[in-house]
Amino acid sequence: MLALRLIERKRDGGRLEPGEWRALANAYAAGHVPDYQMASFLMACFLRGLDRGETHALTDAMLHSGGQLELDDLNRPRIDKHSTGGVGDKVSIVLAPLIASLGVAVPMMSGRGLGHTGGTLDKLEAIPGFETNLTLDVAKRLLETLNCALFGQTSEIAPADRKMYALRDATGTVESIPLIAASIMSKKLAEGLTGLVLDVKRGSGAFLPDIERGLELAQTMIDLGSDHNCPVVALVTAMDRPLGHACGNALEVEEAILALRGEGPGDLMHVTYALGAEMLMLAKCVKDRDEAHRMMERAIGTGRAAEHFQRIIEAQGGNPAVVDDPAILPQAAQVEIFTAPRRGFISRVEPRTIGRGIAALGGGRTTMEDTLDLAVGFVITARPGDWVEQGEALATIFARDRAGIDSGRATLRAAITLADEADLPLPLVSHRVSAAGVEVLEDA
Amino acid sequence: MLALRLIERKRDGGRLEPGEWRALANAYAAGHVPDYQMASFLMACFLRGLDRGETHALTDAMLHSGGQLELDDLNRPRIDKHSTGGVGDKVSIVLAPLIASLGVAVPMMSGRGLGHTGGTLDKLEAIPGFETNLTLDVAKRLLETLNCALFGQTSEIAPADRKMYALRDATGTVESIPLIAASIMSKKLAEGLTGLVLDVKRGSGAFLPDIERGLELAQTMIDLGSDHNCPVVALVTAMDRPLGHACGNALEVEEAILALRGEGPGDLMHVTYALGAEMLMLAKCVKDRDEAHRMMERAIGTGRAAEHFQRIIEAQGGNPAVVDDPAILPQAAQVEIFTAPRRGFISRVEPRTIGRGIAALGGGRTTMEDTLDLAVGFVITARPGDWVEQGEALATIFARDRAGIDSGRATLRAAITLADEADLPLPLVSHRVSAAGVEVLEDA
Repeated sequence: MLALRLIERKRDGGRLEPGEWRALANAYAAGHVPDYQMASFLMACFLRGLDRGETHALTDAMLHSGGQLELDDLNRPRIDKHSTGGVGDKVSIVLAPLIASLGVAVPMMSGRGLGHTGGTLDKLEAIPGFETNLTLDVAKRLLETLNCALFGQTSEIAPADRKMYALRDATGTVESIPLIAASIMSKKLAEGLTGLVLDVKRGSGAFLPDIERGLELAQTMIDLGSDHNCPVVALVTAMDRPLGHACGNALEVEEAILALRGEGPGDLMHVTYALGAEMLMLAKCVKDRDEAHRMMERAIGTGRAAEHFQRIIEAQGGNPAVVDDPAILPQAAQVEIFTAPRRGFISRVEPRTIGRGIAALGGGRTTMEDTLDLAVGFVITARPGDWVEQGEALATIFARDRAGIDSGRATLRAAITLADEADLPLPLVSHRVSAAGVEVLEDA
Repeated sequence: MLALRLIERKRDGGRLEPGEWRALANAYAAGHVPDYQMASFLMACFLRGLDRGETHALTDAMLHSGGQLELDDLNRPRIDKHSTGGVGDKVSIVLAPLIASLGVAVPMMSGRGLGHTGGTLDKLEAIPGFETNLTLDVAKRLLETLNCALFGQTSEIAPADRKMYALRDATGTVESIPLIAASIMSKKLAEGLTGLVLDVKRGSGAFLPDIERGLELAQTMIDLGSDHNCPVVALVTAMDRPLGHACGNALEVEEAILALRGEGPGDLMHVTYALGAEMLMLAKCVKDRDEAHRMMERAIGTGRAAEHFQRIIEAQGGNPAVVDDPAILPQAAQVEIFTAPRRGFISRVEPRTIGRGIAALGGGRTTMEDTLDLAVGFVITARPGDWVEQGEALATIFARDRAGIDSGRATLRAAITLADEADLPLPLVSHRVSAAGVEVLEDA
């Protein structure tokens, strides 16, 4: 009866009090409110919206539905980076060891891929033996010893959010900014952070393609952070093409390792350094962005970052030799080059098509129950704006069999557009949003 | 996956094609679409609305999810009356035998009470032995022989509507005009009607208290009727106070019998004749309203209508002696008079309070699983506008025990307002709506 009253109130444009959000989240997590009532409520939330106080209250309610990492006695800044998701986005795998090697604790709770976007947990599991299913106690110990824990949302963390997110995914209620922001922040606050850097993707491959919606999400997250004593800074980055060359789980781990060894592609390094600088500034380890960049370049140049990744891998049960020898990663049985069908400018490399193509190869999920082939995917060296001759290599397909190669070929034909004129891609890092407001860094 | 796409489209303000409505209704009835997806979809429908074509398609989809009464070979007009529900509304029990006795087939599929409103099925079951659970075959036979069948929505009729209505009731998605109209019309069309008279209640005890919403529902039903070759005429009637004196299942059957014998209260007869005249005009049995009134008065005056009710009761397994001796109906153990606490005008007799009071006595449902005490209720002789002296009898309470009498007393104290000035009640029959438009008959 409680749920029905709250559904009707939200449906009619009313608001819920903090105690009501708490009661509803707890009753739902405990199974006392059926999925169908929560589904109807979530659609009412989607269409009627939540005000700032309600978003705060929902975040709190989901946060307190479970346990938290208690890291106050760690006596170090604790900063995480969260991305709204994209294709080829392996930044977390570079940033976590890099920033941890610089003395900042990075409690990085990640998710799995779904739809066209990849997930950090899936990628890490391409490393033989790597265990992402950590208890909060184990994660805490890793943070104490190595400043880093790479793990998934355990059943201890925000169980109300976990259950609600799965329901939203099945009921068309995902793309609501207050619901997204509350879901992310409830988990991030459970990590015991002192600061959070948000990577808001924009462009055709982004979860929220429009810059306006991306900025709205950033502002909502920043407000939630302010209200919870956890400063949030957001960068808006390009997802109108994949980030880096590698798209696919093991392939992305390999590229992340290259990046930690100083051999990463320029766009990946640009975004990684931009986000890392914000993390170091939030941690108050540096006085400005330039100092942050020098620190990160030194950690990579000296091999300290890559070495730190080895120690993290070892501590989480994985084979640390992978950092020196990425061939240890799962390898695709079939590898083939994809060449330009004509001469011209690369005008588009469509990330959604690539992401769905990885799923078609068996490397991505359409439902949470799918198991993945971690070896498959694409390495796409062609970039929007490049001039190519007919027959020039644009990409490599990694598949488990010949049918996969054919599927991959079809994906690349659909994803890569050649034209007589070059389209201008989106700037890599276009906006910075903080409690002080929106700063336009570079915009087309 | 189909359901998710349709949820998202409706959520974003789009429309579904007829084939999509059909596929969704059938998949839901067959259990292939889970309740939580349908709940989210229904909330999106509630907030985004359905256009005329969609309402038509949903009605068709629900109608064709089950069987229908095939009455074309009956060679008689087939007219039903449907009310949006109220307190003390026993019009169906008077009208069905009355109109059937005049040569018009009345296939009357009714519902059960829920919340503050009563249901014709519950009332009829107060007659010892009366069976409302008829198959379509039995209902058809009764219509052939007696022009009348009084029955409930079987599992054969519009199963998609049946399942969807139960879900709407639990998910805050009931009060949507297109959803209400499609639900009613899918069942009414399954009755094989050649015309339908709709009683749209207005005022504080109505399902849709505002006249504007009532007129909108009437218009939507009229449109659906036109689209399905089943003309619909609606009258807007008062539900700012109970209709007639008796409120409670057996008590209302007794009052309906009195009405069939020519001894019904004036307001009940006024509404019954107004609706009956529309039925006879739709059936083309009369040239005008005056002729219709004369016909009905004659059927009642000669005893033909009451006698027809006896035959219907007998045919449906009930004890026909009840028409001559209503004492056969279940009787309450405790009966007590409620008197005026002060002198003054009766300014309000609040129907929702009375309806909830009947439920509190055990005579109404808060969930569909409740079983009812059919004997309990109120007979309220006080009418808004009456002048009464302190200590004058206003009503009689019928309860199963002393606690019920106390509860009934509290209900009447809350429901009946005495004041120094008389409020004007709503006109009994204020508007007539047909395909030709809205006619204001009498409005305050």
